[in-house]
Amino acid sequence: MASLSRDTTGVYAIAPTPFDESGAVDFDSLGRLVDFYGSAGVTGLTLLGQLGEAPKLSHEESVRIVRYVIKRTDLPIVVGVSAPGYAAVRALTSDVMAAGADGVMIAPPNTLRTDDQIVGYYAGASAAIGEDVPFVIQDYPLSFSVVMTPAVIARIAGVAPGCVMLKHEDWPGLEKITALRQLQADGAMPRLSILCGNGGLFLDFETERGADGAMTGYCVPELLVDVVRHTTAGDRDAAHDIFDAHLPLLRYEQQPGVGLAVRKYVMKRRGILASDAQRKPGAALSPRARGEVDYLLTRLARKDGRIVVTA
Amino acid sequence: MASLSRDTTGVYAIAPTPFDESGAVDFDSLGRLVDFYGSAGVTGLTLLGQLGEAPKLSHEESVRIVRYVIKRTDLPIVVGVSAPGYAAVRALTSDVMAAGADGVMIAPPNTLRTDDQIVGYYAGASAAIGEDVPFVIQDYPLSFSVVMTPAVIARIAGVAPGCVMLKHEDWPGLEKITALRQLQADGAMPRLSILCGNGGLFLDFETERGADGAMTGYCVPELLVDVVRHTTAGDRDAAHDIFDAHLPLLRYEQQPGVGLAVRKYVMKRRGILASDAQRKPGAALSPRARGEVDYLLTRLARKDGRIVVTA
Amino acid sequence: MASLSRDTTGVYAIAPTPFDESGAVDFDSLGRLVDFYGSAGVTGLTLLGQLGEAPKLSHEESVRIVRYVIKRTDLPIVVGVSAPGYAAVRALTSDVMAAGADGVMIAPPNTLRTDDQIVGYYAGASAAIGEDVPFVIQDYPLSFSVVMTPAVIARIAGVAPGCVMLKHEDWPGLEKITALRQLQADGAMPRLSILCGNGGLFLDFETERGADGAMTGYCVPELLVDVVRHTTAGDRDAAHDIFDAHLPLLRYEQQPGVGLAVRKYVMKRRGILASDAQRKPGAALSPRARGEVDYLLTRLARKDGRIVVTA
Amino acid sequence: MASLSRDTTGVYAIAPTPFDESGAVDFDSLGRLVDFYGSAGVTGLTLLGQLGEAPKLSHEESVRIVRYVIKRTDLPIVVGVSAPGYAAVRALTSDVMAAGADGVMIAPPNTLRTDDQIVGYYAGASAAIGEDVPFVIQDYPLSFSVVMTPAVIARIAGVAPGCVMLKHEDWPGLEKITALRQLQADGAMPRLSILCGNGGLFLDFETERGADGAMTGYCVPELLVDVVRHTTAGDRDAAHDIFDAHLPLLRYEQQPGVGLAVRKYVMKRRGILASDAQRKPGAALSPRARGEVDYLLTRLARKDGRIVVTA
Repeated sequence: MASLSRDTTGVYAIAPTPFDESGAVDFDSLGRLVDFYGSAGVTGLTLLGQLGEAPKLSHEESVRIVRYVIKRTDLPIVVGVSAPGYAAVRALTSDVMAAGADGVMIAPPNTLRTDDQIVGYYAGASAAIGEDVPFVIQDYPLSFSVVMTPAVIARIAGVAPGCVMLKHEDWPGLEKITALRQLQADGAMPRLSILCGNGGLFLDFETERGADGAMTGYCVPELLVDVVRHTTAGDRDAAHDIFDAHLPLLRYEQQPGVGLAVRKYVMKRRGILASDAQRKPGAALSPRARGEVDYLLTRLARKDGRIVVTA
Repeated sequence: MASLSRDTTGVYAIAPTPFDESGAVDFDSLGRLVDFYGSAGVTGLTLLGQLGEAPKLSHEESVRIVRYVIKRTDLPIVVGVSAPGYAAVRALTSDVMAAGADGVMIAPPNTLRTDDQIVGYYAGASAAIGEDVPFVIQDYPLSFSVVMTPAVIARIAGVAPGCVMLKHEDWPGLEKITALRQLQADGAMPRLSILCGNGGLFLDFETERGADGAMTGYCVPELLVDVVRHTTAGDRDAAHDIFDAHLPLLRYEQQPGVGLAVRKYVMKRRGILASDAQRKPGAALSPRARGEVDYLLTRLARKDGRIVVTA
Repeated sequence: MASLSRDTTGVYAIAPTPFDESGAVDFDSLGRLVDFYGSAGVTGLTLLGQLGEAPKLSHEESVRIVRYVIKRTDLPIVVGVSAPGYAAVRALTSDVMAAGADGVMIAPPNTLRTDDQIVGYYAGASAAIGEDVPFVIQDYPLSFSVVMTPAVIARIAGVAPGCVMLKHEDWPGLEKITALRQLQADGAMPRLSILCGNGGLFLDFETERGADGAMTGYCVPELLVDVVRHTTAGDRDAAHDIFDAHLPLLRYEQQPGVGLAVRKYVMKRRGILASDAQRKPGAALSPRARGEVDYLLTRLARKDGRIVVTA
Repeated sequence: MASLSRDTTGVYAIAPTPFDESGAVDFDSLGRLVDFYGSAGVTGLTLLGQLGEAPKLSHEESVRIVRYVIKRTDLPIVVGVSAPGYAAVRALTSDVMAAGADGVMIAPPNTLRTDDQIVGYYAGASAAIGEDVPFVIQDYPLSFSVVMTPAVIARIAGVAPGCVMLKHEDWPGLEKITALRQLQADGAMPRLSILCGNGGLFLDFETERGADGAMTGYCVPELLVDVVRHTTAGDRDAAHDIFDAHLPLLRYEQQPGVGLAVRKYVMKRRGILASDAQRKPGAALSPRARGEVDYLLTRLARKDGRIVVTA
């Protein structure tokens, strides 16, 4: 069976791309990051997502990063390949699949409006990358201004054989998961793996609603793994208890624009990244904001013993 | 001194508009709601906001609601008067100020783009309603797609004498508060009262950054009052402790579209509203979602003894 | 038969609202304008459209204008009633239908995205105004950012009995007319009257594609009447000859923002309006722009003997 | 002196990219096209613009096309390099400048909103490509939803030394040209070459307002050359006479979405392109639309003897 399929469950961590202070890709940190994800118990990795600073990487850098990670880990790898035109989508897909990736993720261009335009875009993308390439729909209206109804997602799943997974980050989105699972139960659409993004802000309920897990980049991926495990085991209170403990920090990290800076800062404080630098254009944390994150980490450490931050 | 001024602090509760199942305004519930806000310790009330279902009310109904509330309470009253054109803004402002309101709130039309367009819109609005009417800028890019920099807000404050308050709900917004207070300290803008919206999702830090309080409609306004009080008293941990206890529910309520349904449902369960009905078009909570809110309330009641919900 | 129906053909002129220099409604000019439209051979009038400065008029002014026009002319009257919420749509519809209007025009709020949202909005609007009130869908994506496919328009026509006419101003739009007429021929939707807006910029071909006429406000409505008459008579070259003669001015008037200023200026020069003033906020023509319009009028007068402008 | 400078005048033709029916780049047609532009009297060429189907070309194809054209002609070459991130902008700029291009054109990402965001984006782009690379700002709000005031353009010109030209296609835009020239006269901004796009729909007046010429892709570039030449010579009537003769076709070609299909179809009928095929996704002309273009060409041929179309 393919490593990325309609039945995939668990946590795919959206990996940030480590840079050093000069802006060069920091492969040492990348290695540590990949090892860390493995030890944190994630199921797979997603590279070159929006929060992987993909648009700041040249094609060659992107492919090199993918190759490095695939050599370093046995975890299945999804690669973000979104671009304004099919040519770039196809070119990057072709190179990363040849490098051993397990699938790609495609976000809709923010000019799409009607249901037919959205379905047509994904049908064309599927033809462009090849129908045998497993791909993930990224459904993130807040960021892309493209709104996909459950019926539209069902239509895409019907016309694009490679469509196996939904990165669900509509907001609000709980009823959408229920509606998609109902369409599936009614035979109106094939099963899709549904992994939830949106920083994890509703993961506690999303898993209860029928999502298969998470695909997001929260700086403490252990929490995502916990929530999925507890929910799968039917231990609702345990899932919410650990989720609630992390929610103040998770919420802080989920701020658009600033979120990646928070994520990298925490991963630096956890000793994973050597630097929290972003390539330009990138938001840096003010000293004030770093102090706020430190405060949240201190409070969190009292509730989650795994949180040990270096000074 | 005017009850609504550049120095206003505290919590202005965004009041929902109670309807009965037939869609009629439920004045009995409105009376209980106003009394409840008073007992909860809020500083003032904001009527006819976006989440007050203002666009579903006729002009006559709007004015009648304002009159009813003003008769019922001594709390200062801000009224939302946003409309596509100045004519409706002026007409509603004129009527509610005559009825005894203390000021109005104006959101920007979502077609504004450039800095000059935004400043020009508010300059025109100020002239339309009269320069002596205190008004609140609603800065909510997520909802209105209009992005105001601190410099633009300073320009508005400079040209519109009635501009006394900012309803701050940019996202992310912490640095914006700091920037605005710095502009003020530098003499580059007059002081504005800054009350924070956005469902209260960052109120714990917003107050620390220099905001004067909250203007939002969270279904447990006591929490908003607590956070402002603790922060004002310099008791940071206490502010965060109570905030964190409420965050799971507060986050659930802050979902766009669904949020008002959650708010009304909780207020019904708290015995304040007779019905959680919304006028059309309105999102209703599914049984599943009601169950989720019930679960959150049960968990919250363990941490905040004031939460007693009727069966 | 209702004066506004699925079989309506001809030209509905979008009437500007005349103001004097102080900003008051100029009823003398309005009377002349209505008389002028009658003598120009139009079929009906549309009041309070976007270019009728509707958002700058209070409800009372709006109703007074409608009453004045209905008393002055036997032409059927459509009234724009678009508003952010159903309450205002219903209130204005009720008052203008009681005053003798023949139908209303409703534009979609610019927050609608999916097909279902658009259909749902019009279903709700139809229920709000009453299913017996004939209404016009305004399909103007350039202005409203709402894109309606032919299938969506067919769905609206299917669920809203009062929907009898489409103000077609999609851009590009020729294939859309053909598609709509094909859906109708296939029995997939009831006939709608299709009148074209967009300043008339493609009226020469729109009528050939199956449109029933024009609903727009070009400052020389005689041209619109000519094009519809020639096309109906099968005289293609005559339609294009007169259209092409007007195209330089028509194109100049169709500029967003500035267009209404051009329109009022020409109508003032033609002796119809006493003033070309707009209520604030309104774009005024610069002296340079007035000179350009004068030049275009002079050139047009050589090709169309009816163009006589006062000095 | 650099071939692309703040003093450039004339017509830069936006070249379509010729494909054969299989979707391969048709270099024979590209050669004919380049020769044709030379004989038509244009000043320079712009490759890989939006209407050059740039997003459908891989990086390698893009560079190959640029190299081919540069070898074929001595005309100065501007290359569109717009992309979501600076990495792709820099990579393509580097390759095409090395191949001998004279400058690049950069459109703003459609997520920019505030004045500062726009200036910041161009400052960053300038740093990314190198300050010695001449570049063109593409100011096209209708397509990009980014609105640049004259003051913002002046700020960009002030901070980015390479900024030498404005592709002006705001709409309406005549007053903007006047405002920019006034800022320049006031010493508030350096001179920029202003070439006008927007299909040429207002070129007759834009040149009178102070624009230096055109940068657009109208299928009869001879017309653009004529208008600039007549206006420069002070022969206003001659400029408008030839412009008006072409306006019916020019207007038809300027339709978004369909426009490129019209352009390629006419160029095929003129014997320049072997095929009017577009790569997917591309709009094809219906038989009905082709008939409309044929009709317009027939009418135009009566007024402009240079229009000879092959059967």
